[in-house]
Amino acid sequence: MTVSKLSNTARVDEASIQPFPNSEKTYIEGSRPDIRVPMREISLTATTVSNPDGSTRLEPNEAVRVYDTSGVYSDPEVSVDIRQGLEAMRSSWVLERDDTEELPGDSSDYAKLRAADDSLDGLRFDLKRTPRRAKPGKNVSQMHYARQGVITPEMEYIAIRENMTLQHLKEQGLVNEQHPGEAFGAEIPDEITPEFVRSEVARGRAIIPCNINHPESEPMIIGRNFLVKVNGNIGNSALGSSIEEEVAKLSWGIRWGADTMMDLSTGKNIHETREWIIRNSPVPVGTVPIYQALEKVDGVAENLTWEVFRDTLIEQAEQGVDYFTIHAGVLLRYVPMTATRVTGIVSRGGSIMAKWCLAHHEENFLYTHFEEICEICKQYDVAFSLGDGLRPGSIADANDAAQFGELETLGELTKIAWQHDVQVMIEGPGHVPMHMIKANMEKQLEHCDEAPFYTLGPLTTDIAPGYDHITSGIGAAMIGWYGCAMLCYVTPKEHLGLPNKDDVKTGIITYKLAAHAADLAKGHPGAQVRDNALSKARFEFRWEDQFNLGLDPDTARSYHDETLPKESAKVAHFCSMCGPKFCSMKISQEVRDYASAQGVEVRGETIKVLDLDAEMQKKSEEFKQAGSEIYQKV
Amino acid sequence: MTVSKLSNTARVDEASIQPFPNSEKTYIEGSRPDIRVPMREISLTATTVSNPDGSTRLEPNEAVRVYDTSGVYSDPEVSVDIRQGLEAMRSSWVLERDDTEELPGDSSDYAKLRAADDSLDGLRFDLKRTPRRAKPGKNVSQMHYARQGVITPEMEYIAIRENMTLQHLKEQGLVNEQHPGEAFGAEIPDEITPEFVRSEVARGRAIIPCNINHPESEPMIIGRNFLVKVNGNIGNSALGSSIEEEVAKLSWGIRWGADTMMDLSTGKNIHETREWIIRNSPVPVGTVPIYQALEKVDGVAENLTWEVFRDTLIEQAEQGVDYFTIHAGVLLRYVPMTATRVTGIVSRGGSIMAKWCLAHHEENFLYTHFEEICEICKQYDVAFSLGDGLRPGSIADANDAAQFGELETLGELTKIAWQHDVQVMIEGPGHVPMHMIKANMEKQLEHCDEAPFYTLGPLTTDIAPGYDHITSGIGAAMIGWYGCAMLCYVTPKEHLGLPNKDDVKTGIITYKLAAHAADLAKGHPGAQVRDNALSKARFEFRWEDQFNLGLDPDTARSYHDETLPKESAKVAHFCSMCGPKFCSMKISQEVRDYASAQGVEVRGETIKVLDLDAEMQKKSEEFKQAGSEIYQKV
Repeated sequence: MTVSKLSNTARVDEASIQPFPNSEKTYIEGSRPDIRVPMREISLTATTVSNPDGSTRLEPNEAVRVYDTSGVYSDPEVSVDIRQGLEAMRSSWVLERDDTEELPGDSSDYAKLRAADDSLDGLRFDLKRTPRRAKPGKNVSQMHYARQGVITPEMEYIAIRENMTLQHLKEQGLVNEQHPGEAFGAEIPDEITPEFVRSEVARGRAIIPCNINHPESEPMIIGRNFLVKVNGNIGNSALGSSIEEEVAKLSWGIRWGADTMMDLSTGKNIHETREWIIRNSPVPVGTVPIYQALEKVDGVAENLTWEVFRDTLIEQAEQGVDYFTIHAGVLLRYVPMTATRVTGIVSRGGSIMAKWCLAHHEENFLYTHFEEICEICKQYDVAFSLGDGLRPGSIADANDAAQFGELETLGELTKIAWQHDVQVMIEGPGHVPMHMIKANMEKQLEHCDEAPFYTLGPLTTDIAPGYDHITSGIGAAMIGWYGCAMLCYVTPKEHLGLPNKDDVKTGIITYKLAAHAADLAKGHPGAQVRDNALSKARFEFRWEDQFNLGLDPDTARSYHDETLPKESAKVAHFCSMCGPKFCSMKISQEVRDYASAQGVEVRGETIKVLDLDAEMQKKSEEFKQAGSEIYQKV
Repeated sequence: MTVSKLSNTARVDEASIQPFPNSEKTYIEGSRPDIRVPMREISLTATTVSNPDGSTRLEPNEAVRVYDTSGVYSDPEVSVDIRQGLEAMRSSWVLERDDTEELPGDSSDYAKLRAADDSLDGLRFDLKRTPRRAKPGKNVSQMHYARQGVITPEMEYIAIRENMTLQHLKEQGLVNEQHPGEAFGAEIPDEITPEFVRSEVARGRAIIPCNINHPESEPMIIGRNFLVKVNGNIGNSALGSSIEEEVAKLSWGIRWGADTMMDLSTGKNIHETREWIIRNSPVPVGTVPIYQALEKVDGVAENLTWEVFRDTLIEQAEQGVDYFTIHAGVLLRYVPMTATRVTGIVSRGGSIMAKWCLAHHEENFLYTHFEEICEICKQYDVAFSLGDGLRPGSIADANDAAQFGELETLGELTKIAWQHDVQVMIEGPGHVPMHMIKANMEKQLEHCDEAPFYTLGPLTTDIAPGYDHITSGIGAAMIGWYGCAMLCYVTPKEHLGLPNKDDVKTGIITYKLAAHAADLAKGHPGAQVRDNALSKARFEFRWEDQFNLGLDPDTARSYHDETLPKESAKVAHFCSMCGPKFCSMKISQEVRDYASAQGVEVRGETIKVLDLDAEMQKKSEEFKQAGSEIYQKV
């Protein structure tokens, strides 16, 4: 009898590999042929322009390049087989640095146990990589390289990726037209160079989460001087969902723009689920190791030990987890400060550690063992995401003493991690009314010396369960503007249930638009290119271009087609909102044609206004000659 | 043969009259029995509290009162028949002022034509009211009364309505616990009194849109020192939807919280559609009269005349329209400034007037006839909503010379309207990146002397068609915080198609949460009551209370039930996100119980921290006596 094995049956999620409309997946080559930075190029149709003689001509619109997080899932040249995992693109970079060694097998006791358990064969990802680790005495973190003055291929890759849109504009000889931003002290350069990436990582102001055991990942950077990033969460719980579903949520999430994915599994087979996810993820994967550690002690927080936790870190580091959420700032003295809160401690990790601290009357073992955790992280290049275990869970609890006390401790831990050249970002709230958001960013910059901030929302009101992607999207956009480097998404199911694929998509798109709104407000060079192209398409009734330039072409098209399904309506110079006679866009074009026909220049503002004055003067003369009847009867 | 008549067949939308769960419609009586201010009171279940002996007791949670825009549609005592229209609650207030007269019939030529057209009998609202108008020489605007020192019943009604939550707290002897706000110069009092309402209206800082011919409306106020309001749009276009559908969208929109509704119909039978809407609307109804005027000249903007427009104003004023959007700021000299824009003129009204100006080489007739419009408005108490015909339609065009030029003119017009004691609010953009929003609010306050600002969004990015309720919800929340008095909703179909009922709901709820986020940030007294109650319910796993306190109980419940449909899960102390073992809320309660059992006070922060120090000291002693092994092996 053959057992049904996931490694025989698992299939890539079909919805995740559909090509984007009018888009081409291309790669920009760096200084060496194995630096190939993916992007999506959206082709546009031409603009129909009227000639003075009434004939028309076509003026082409340049394709728009957009940042692409979807990996080879969106590359029609690649046939993705999730049983094989993705190509280990970064392997050669790791190998050529010659500071790591292949291990004989898993170092962690738990991983060995799982490997020896035949009953898991049906679930296992068959083609597991042999883990690597730094050679004794070596530090393989990108921060370490950066501080040695080394520009890694990862850094060059990132520079090309971040700089892409602008570069493309320059190649076309176009000027970047956008509003100057307001960046609150961020130092965003006009061009992202590999050296700038290096210097930011060395400074600790940006991180590149890229575990040496996750060579499938496409390098990306998180820092306030780069594009604002978005994290999506996946992971099963005791109540739900299969491994295949989680891999589908991964490929689905990155399709819509997730820059990193956290696997927050708390249910069964966490180890095996994670292997499938990492082997198939082109984006960095983060975890909260305490979740799995707790599973190992049967959910009894008091029974957690440093040894169990340490083994979990090694287990996960050798699988390739790129960043760990570690709730090392939940100190014993902060815990009772939460007792007066309306919603106590809402971070799962935070509440677990709080319970442990109180049960043992001891300081948080993540804090007391923090340097040992650093030692592990630097052997694999796992970045810290220092968890905000005491973040507020309600508007009422925002910015309280417990929250800010913990933030100060996270600042202290940041400096310790940096002594080990371990990359660090800091997690932030949560639930904060709008006017109290900025204080969070300012305190974080101050206490954590500009280490990247990574916030969940924040939600700006508690009264809209079912709409918390929006209550939090407001706060996320604002804190991104103020300097937050990555926004952890919130789905419509927040507080209510486990998100399904639709919820994941809605959450990601909401956060992408929030992150982009922040990029615009910060004045990130090139950020406005896509807005401008879409707005021009909208004005010119290039419906397909408008859909395709959007974050979600499918939804835009289907909304349009609900009222005007016919193909002919895609070229119509009106839409169902106003009908053919009433379209302001159409009238506006007539105004423009009219102004142009009257000799009013429509290029630069100065020329235009001067011409306008002359024009008005001329008209005024004509008008007087015609008898000066201001209010003629028609 | 009997013709099918809408006045025989029309039925109220069933979905709009369903009772809200655990809610009671109540009325607070003012100084006289006919001032009955509606509210919805949400009953809550009790909290189960553990006694020291391990037994439990129930502690009641006070009901929460929420602002209620839904009129009698949500009153189970009232059977709504849309063929009859709503009760004319305000009629006696209008009559007792003895400054109006009943007209023999419609004054407008167009209304007479329509009335004489038998072919419209099937569409007509049968029970049309006879219109009223100010007696010669009288001014019946609320601003006029306010400036005479008169507190009208409308003003008292509003004071009770705005003050409701706080008043309810006081009655219960509860303290309002909320964060102090940041109000950017708004002067929000601790208690809204009728005199405060009067003074704000007299000052022009708030308006009460309440046409004497719309006695069915429940008074409400729009001003920066009051709760932020939300407008929803309905109306058919040449391509869509029936009268009955539009009335259903009205009742549906106010169910979810629309404070006013604009009828933006541009299709057929605008006059008849409006009659149905107004007679069934408990909220003020706004229109853009130029839309209908244009229909009257067959869609040819050049053929518009002051006479046609004037007749339209009178037609609509006598039907009961509460505010008119008038694009009187689109001056001839501003129009060519828009020719260099990426998206030209996107306001329908603005583009119509721009075309008219250019075609005639004349100044906008709405501007040149502005005082005559004031004369009409004050005879019916129609408020101005001075239209931003030159608002930006894309990020690229934000805050340009055309936009701000028009805003200055709107400021000039505001002062003229105030000379006539006509109420004014000012419309604002549109599409604006986050960092450029505040300048809009500041310039508006400056130029328009604090007349209420009423903005569409603004959208903070253009790249998410299909999600523009969110791109704009971000900007709406922010500008509401900065001082905007009313937010015009945007639905997911914006730029793509005509919204259906689902879209209307999504748009309204998004804007309600944005408005509420603004109220919290401004520190509006009592604003946080609902957040606090919901957060407490959430923390205590009172699932039904959490749903019912939300803006959309139906959606919250259905999201929860997708993964945990059984009734038993509604009392479960966990949810599907984390499962039973991992719930941070549950662990947090354990921490609280633990802290409490250890003698740590959980009331005030000072007491708590002091106790904490003592507690830690005690533990430390115990710890030393136990051998001071900090990191015990378990």
